[in-house]
This record gives sequence, structure tokens and C-alpha cells, in this order.
Amino acid sequence: MTSPSPAAKYGAELFGTFWLVFGGCGSAIFAAKQVAESEDGRSTFQVGIGFLGVSLAFGLTVVTMAYAVAHISGAHFNPAISLGAAVSGRLPWKEVPGYWISQVVGGLLAGLLLLIIANGLPGFSREGNMAANGYGEHSPSGYSLTAVIIAEILLTAFFLIVVLGATDDRAPKGFGPLAIGLALTLIHLISIPISNTSVNPARSTGVAFFNGNGAPGQLWVFWLAPLIGGLIGGVIYPFLFENGKLAIGSRAAA
Amino acid sequence: MTSPSPAAKYGAELFGTFWLVFGGCGSAIFAAKQVAESEDGRSTFQVGIGFLGVSLAFGLTVVTMAYAVAHISGAHFNPAISLGAAVSGRLPWKEVPGYWISQVVGGLLAGLLLLIIANGLPGFSREGNMAANGYGEHSPSGYSLTAVIIAEILLTAFFLIVVLGATDDRAPKGFGPLAIGLALTLIHLISIPISNTSVNPARSTGVAFFNGNGAPGQLWVFWLAPLIGGLIGGVIYPFLFENGKLAIGSRAAA
Amino acid sequence: MTSPSPAAKYGAELFGTFWLVFGGCGSAIFAAKQVAESEDGRSTFQVGIGFLGVSLAFGLTVVTMAYAVAHISGAHFNPAISLGAAVSGRLPWKEVPGYWISQVVGGLLAGLLLLIIANGLPGFSREGNMAANGYGEHSPSGYSLTAVIIAEILLTAFFLIVVLGATDDRAPKGFGPLAIGLALTLIHLISIPISNTSVNPARSTGVAFFNGNGAPGQLWVFWLAPLIGGLIGGVIYPFLFENGKLAIGSRAAA
Amino acid sequence: MTSPSPAAKYGAELFGTFWLVFGGCGSAIFAAKQVAESEDGRSTFQVGIGFLGVSLAFGLTVVTMAYAVAHISGAHFNPAISLGAAVSGRLPWKEVPGYWISQVVGGLLAGLLLLIIANGLPGFSREGNMAANGYGEHSPSGYSLTAVIIAEILLTAFFLIVVLGATDDRAPKGFGPLAIGLALTLIHLISIPISNTSVNPARSTGVAFFNGNGAPGQLWVFWLAPLIGGLIGGVIYPFLFENGKLAIGSRAAA
Repeated sequence: MTSPSPAAKYGAELFGTFWLVFGGCGSAIFAAKQVAESEDGRSTFQVGIGFLGVSLAFGLTVVTMAYAVAHISGAHFNPAISLGAAVSGRLPWKEVPGYWISQVVGGLLAGLLLLIIANGLPGFSREGNMAANGYGEHSPSGYSLTAVIIAEILLTAFFLIVVLGATDDRAPKGFGPLAIGLALTLIHLISIPISNTSVNPARSTGVAFFNGNGAPGQLWVFWLAPLIGGLIGGVIYPFLFENGKLAIGSRAAA
Repeated sequence: MTSPSPAAKYGAELFGTFWLVFGGCGSAIFAAKQVAESEDGRSTFQVGIGFLGVSLAFGLTVVTMAYAVAHISGAHFNPAISLGAAVSGRLPWKEVPGYWISQVVGGLLAGLLLLIIANGLPGFSREGNMAANGYGEHSPSGYSLTAVIIAEILLTAFFLIVVLGATDDRAPKGFGPLAIGLALTLIHLISIPISNTSVNPARSTGVAFFNGNGAPGQLWVFWLAPLIGGLIGGVIYPFLFENGKLAIGSRAAA
Repeated sequence: MTSPSPAAKYGAELFGTFWLVFGGCGSAIFAAKQVAESEDGRSTFQVGIGFLGVSLAFGLTVVTMAYAVAHISGAHFNPAISLGAAVSGRLPWKEVPGYWISQVVGGLLAGLLLLIIANGLPGFSREGNMAANGYGEHSPSGYSLTAVIIAEILLTAFFLIVVLGATDDRAPKGFGPLAIGLALTLIHLISIPISNTSVNPARSTGVAFFNGNGAPGQLWVFWLAPLIGGLIGGVIYPFLFENGKLAIGSRAAA
Repeated sequence: MTSPSPAAKYGAELFGTFWLVFGGCGSAIFAAKQVAESEDGRSTFQVGIGFLGVSLAFGLTVVTMAYAVAHISGAHFNPAISLGAAVSGRLPWKEVPGYWISQVVGGLLAGLLLLIIANGLPGFSREGNMAANGYGEHSPSGYSLTAVIIAEILLTAFFLIVVLGATDDRAPKGFGPLAIGLALTLIHLISIPISNTSVNPARSTGVAFFNGNGAPGQLWVFWLAPLIGGLIGGVIYPFLFENGKLAIGSRAAA
């Protein structure tokens, strides 16, 4: 069995991040809020998937695509994971730029396709309706910048602990994609009202410019906080659970 | 261990596609919208399963039946998957017609049984209430033909990438049915409002004629778009992730 | 490793069926409908788990308890499964009576505990509120006896196909409990509005007498239909997928 | 492969219990109730995750973190599980105090972080809004002390049976975290309206003091009942399913 080529790896990250942004943000854009009317016309009610469905969708993009291509690229689909993987010695540092670029390109292509499809709905306006992340007045519930930064750092750090732990040689084989994808579902269940949940700069970048409405100006938060979180998680796991063997690119990619 | 007989294979595809259409469309027909009244009679609210429950149901038909019969037929339950499997060399081309026929017959039988049971509800009218797929005025939210075609092609192509990747020899063993079924759940979470989600011509055919209300006339879209998507996914995966070894029936069925 | 004793087997079936009825019916009794008021007092909305949550609960009782005790008893928790298992040669016929008795006793104990806890809610009335199964005026949506019988037979038959297929020697190891439990979730997603979903005589018996309100008089349907379905599924699987080797107790329990 | 150090074990329990309380209670605090308005302004509806989403979140904290660190500490994250594990011989008694302290500290830190983030929402008041457990007037639906105690004991006892069964040597390898986490989801689906669901003294302690509003005075119930349940489950499983070999610390930790 030969090792996957760089083109295959970067292709896998591009397709995977496309899927994450298209599926996660798409479920939010197309299906989160769908009102139906009761037969007697007395009242309307929600048949859309709500924040729970969106949380599940984000997680399932990772579950499904990680089972499909983890054997190619490790299935990061997220610059913060690639950073944490590099810090913890799971990814060679020299591959980080290629991973990041593939992820951002994949995210942006997904944003573009989402916009094209959304425009097929009469009356759709992209302004503020493309599932962007935000704080303050652009937070779904109005959470402050401080709350958003703390939440994003903390959630990304724990995300990395799950990523590194579930793919540890001592963990059960084959369950990594399930655990990691469901961790993303969990993270969304907690924090959609706070920041619309990023923990992934490529996801935030993929829709910010199409969304407008203040999202591009707040995008720095969703690079800074997830990357800090990824760094923290990438340090904690090997330090605490691998006898402190914090490697800097000395181990091969998983 | 002897190889399954053709009768067993076609039977598995027929039963599996029956289950997909009966379970997925059935959950939509019987359970998506169920209104209950609050005790004080002030308001009504949804206790039905909504689009989230329908999405889960479609996915679970595949998860459950694929664990039951993937060792018999590969568990396609979908002409677009059989096409992509043939293109990528996972299914001998000569078995495609039998797979397609079994799938369509299974879907139609499911549509018939759904109608028989639904008629047990006083006042039920099948016209427009059999979970058919549609675009334009027959799209749940009113998405255009173009949006529907793009969404169906794109989603089916990614579905095939998940199918081929999760059953790749390099992927963890045994998780294929879970990943593939959950991919179908994810696809529904994204696109029920767009087209009521097909990505499967047998599913669309199974209920179109019982549903009436314009569905038979729009059925061509839900053959064309999923098959194009299946073809694209069936080309991309081996081209990008299997060193370009795009086979045309040269490899045995998985 | 010695084979489990009969006491362990019957104990596992009793505990497992208790868990199925307590968890599945309990989620319906305690949590399906929970109304909250919006902060501005303008409207009320559902925070309860609805039919989707109840469906998930039923399935998870099986997922969880089957991982816990399938190595003891095979984890049937359902007389229809024990019947189908016996027909297909997976369970010795002489063990069927003990399995059935354990299952019914477990179900009844669960019904009793549910009633005791439910009585801790001021104003609770057990009459019609114990998640019983029913047809006609006792069907949640008013489905006819014929529709209920067809649905229960068909769903139980497919349930057995999943049970027998997912535990077939050729299926991936270890995924049986997941596939079987999620099949029960799927079955509920389809049919709660039809019959409140039985496919399990022990589940129906466990709450029928505590529920009253016509449930005891309709209980025969939820023995007859699931057992017919179990019989059909128990015949179809070996006939179609195991080269017709329909055994009558000639193979040991799985 | 060397055995994990005590620091790693206690660190794993602290991080895991932090995640359980932060994720489970956080989803309840931040996301359970989120009202959106229909476009025509005629009505409001729920887009929040409800009790179903909170149930899923609690379970996923365990699924995800158990795959990440079960190879370090066994992934209890719950004093009642550690007690049941000790009773059944899965954990040396001398490690119980360290496990309990780590769990409670992790839970309290999670409560603190939840409060800090929640304070980033203008107008948030912690009093009664920190997802505490309660009975009587502090039970979500008003269930009596007796009902709460019975439910908590029974649910924790069955939780332990799932924990011990799913990690039994005879059970399928690798599925323990999934079964155990989903058991916690199931338990919440049943009992959020009863007691807001504890079955875990560390979870209850983690938020009780930040919540105030009677929670500290009722906290004894959520130590007593889960520990009794853990003891019962820890006795039943080995007694019934391991040939009565009820060990008192004589077997090594799993």
C-alpha cells in the first residue's frame, strides 16, 4: 500500500471542508426554520430542523467524510485541527500550509455553491442569511465578544483533545470519525446561540463574505480563537496523556 | 462461504429499497406533522418528528438494512449508487440492470403499501401527500428547477464519494453502513425544503404515481440529476483517491 | 468461558425488557409533551422530546442493553424476536417459553414502576396516559384496525430481517446492537401516529392494564400482529439469504 | 505500553467531568429554549434544541470524551460509576477518592466557566438558570421527592448495568463509549422533566451553588440517590451475569 500523494491529501481536505461547510451551513440556511400551518389554520408550528438539526448536520459532515477519506488525509477539514495535529506531532509542519489552503478553498467553494442554490428560492436575500459566525449584535442571541472568545477557545481546545484522544493508538480502532464528528455536533448543541459556532476558521471564512452584514469585519475572531484553542488542545493532550512527549513535527502524520 | 445467488442479491436490493421508501417516505407521510394541544387549550404545538425526524428515518433505513444485507448485495438500494459503483469498478456492469429493476420494484411496492396504510386514516387524500419529490411549485419551499438540479447532482456526487470511501479497503472495517446511512440523513437535513430530497430515482419513482399532483411529470429530474451525480462521484473517487484507477467493470463487486 | 446459566439468560431478558418498556414508554409518559412559555408571554412552545425523542428513546433502550447483555441472552427483549429467532434456528425452541415469560414479567414490572413515579406528579391520571398501543379511536391519529394490523406485521417482519441479518456471521462483528436498536427507532419514527408502535407484545402488555382506557381490550392485536410479523421475518431471512436453510431449532442460540 | 500515571488518570477524570457538565448543562443553559418569529410575524416558534437536544448533548459528552480518554482512566466522569466500578471489582477501592475529587473539581470548574460565558448575554440572571437538579417545586414539572429518589436510583442502577455490561470482556470491543454515552442520552430523555436528571453527583454539584434558588439545599438527594443506584447496579451485574463473583477491589481497573 503506497502512501497517498499530496494531490490526494489536499483534494481530500478540499472536498471534506467543502462538505462540512456545504452541509453544516446549508442545513442552517435551507432547513433550520420552516413553518407549517395546522390543518384548522389556527396556528403555525415549526417543522424545520432547528438548532438541533443543524448541530447534527455539522457533525455528520465530519462523520461521513472522515470515514470516506481519513485514510487519505487524516480528515481534518479545519485549520485549527491541522494546527493542533502539528503541535502534537501528528502532522508534519511542512504540510500545514497545504492543508490550510485546501481547507479555505473548499470552504469558499461551498459558500459559493450555497449562494447559487439559495438564489433559486424566490425572495432570498444573502445579507445576514448565510449562516455566518458573529459576536455582539451578530451573535444569534447577542453574546459579548469576551463570551464568544472564551467559548470558541474552550470548545476548540476540547475538540482537539477528542481528536487526538480518539485517534490515539490506545483508543479503539475505527471509532475516531464517529467520536470526532459527534464532538462537532455536541459543540454546536452548546454554542449556536453564542457565536453560531465556528471552532473552524475555514467554515467561518467560507460564508463570511457571501453573508456580509458585519461578518467579514468579525472574521478575525473566528481565526484567532479557534487557532488558540487548537494550540491549547494540541499541547494538553500529549503533555497530560502521552507522558509529556510534546513533539514538534517529529512524528509522522497519523 | 459461497457467493450469494443472483436471487438473493436482487431480493436484498428489493427488500432494502422497499425499506428505504417505506421507512423514509412513511415517516414523512404518517409522522412529520402532528399537532397537540396544550392542556390549557391556549395553543397548539408540534409533537411530530418534523424534517429532522424524516431525515433520521431515511438514514436509518440504510443503516439498518445495510447491516442486514450488505454481505448479500452490497446494499445499494439506489440506482445512482449502483451506477457509481459500476463506474468505479465496484459492481460488474452486467448486474446493473437487475439491481435497477429490483430497486424500482421495491420502491413501487413500498409506495403501494404506504397508500394502503394511509387510507386507514379517515379523511386521508393521497393527492400531494405521498412525500413525492418536486421543483418549482412542487418544491416544499418553492426552489427553482435549476437550484433543484444543482443540489441533487452535488448531493448525489458527494453521497457516492462517501459510499466509495467508507467501503474502501483502507477504511475501518464495518463502519460503512453507518457512514453511508448517516450521509443520507445529512443529505435530507440539507435539502428537504429544496426538493423533498431524492438523490435516489427508485425512491422518487416509488411514490410519484401514487402522489400525483404533478410528481409524475417532474420525475425525469429525479432520474437525471441523481444519475449524473452518481456518475460524477463514481469518477472522482477512484480518479483522486485510488491513483486514477478508474475501472469499467474490471473489479468484482465489493 | 462457560455458557451463561438459564437464570442469567432469563434475568437478562427480564432486565432488558424492563429497560425497553421503562425507557421507551417512560420517555413518552414523562417527556413527550412539555410546554414552555416565551419570555414575553406571547406564546407557548414545545420543549418536550416529541415523537422523535420517544423514537430515539425506544431505540436506545435496545442499543444500550444489547451491548450490556447480548453476550448473556442474545438480547431479544421481545416475544416476536424470540419467535423469529426460534423459527430461523437461532434460538432453541425449548427456551422460548422462558424468554417470553421473562419478557412479559419485565414489561409489567416496568409498567408498575412507571405508574409509581408518574403518581409523583400532582394531578397525574393514569387513564389513557400510560403510552398504551391502540387502533381506531385509541390510535394516536385514528388509524383503522386494518391499517394497524398491516403496519405492525410489516414492521415486525422487517425488524426480524434486520435482527437476523445484522447478527449473521457474514455481517460486521459488534454492530448488531446498534443496527437493531436503531431499527426500533426507525420503526417508531414511522408508526407512533398509527398504533403508538408496538412490534413487541411484552411492551404492549407492560402498560396496557395500567393505562386502561380500552387498551386491555385491544391488546390481542399487539400479540397477534407482531407474532405474525416475527414469524414472517424469521422465515424470509433464512429462506432468501441463507440458501433456504430454514431450521427449526437445529442451530444453537447466537 | 506503560500504565497511565495517577496524574494522567485524575486529569482525564477532571477533563472528562468538566466536559460532561460544561456540554450537558451548557446546552441546557444556552440553547434549550430559543424562540424565533415567523416571517409574517403571526407567531413565534421554537428553534432551540429542547429536552431532546440537551439529552443528546449529555450523552455525546460521554461518547466523545470516553473515546478520547477511556484508555487513560476508564472514563467514569461520575462518582456513582466509580462506586459501582469499585463494588464490581473494576476499580481498586484506593483510587476511588482521587476519582471522586477529580470529578467534583472538574464539575465545579465547568460550572464556573458556564457562568462566565452566560454573563456575556445581556440580562442573564444565574438564579435558577444554571440547569440545577431539583425535586418538588424545583423539579422541572413538579415531581415529588419520592418520585425523584425512585427515578434517580433506578436510572443510575441501570446505567451501571450498561456500563459494566458494555465493558465486559465478552461484549464487542470498542463499543463501550458509544453504549454508555447513549445510555446517558436515554436517561435524560426519560427524566429531565422529573429531576432535570442527575444520576451523577459531580454534575449536580458542579452547578448547584452557581444556580442557587434552592439547589444547594436539595443537593443531598443527588448524592444519595445516584450513589445508592450505583451500588445496586454494581452488585447486580456481577451477581447475575458474572457467576456471582462480586469482588471488592480484587480485580484491576478495566
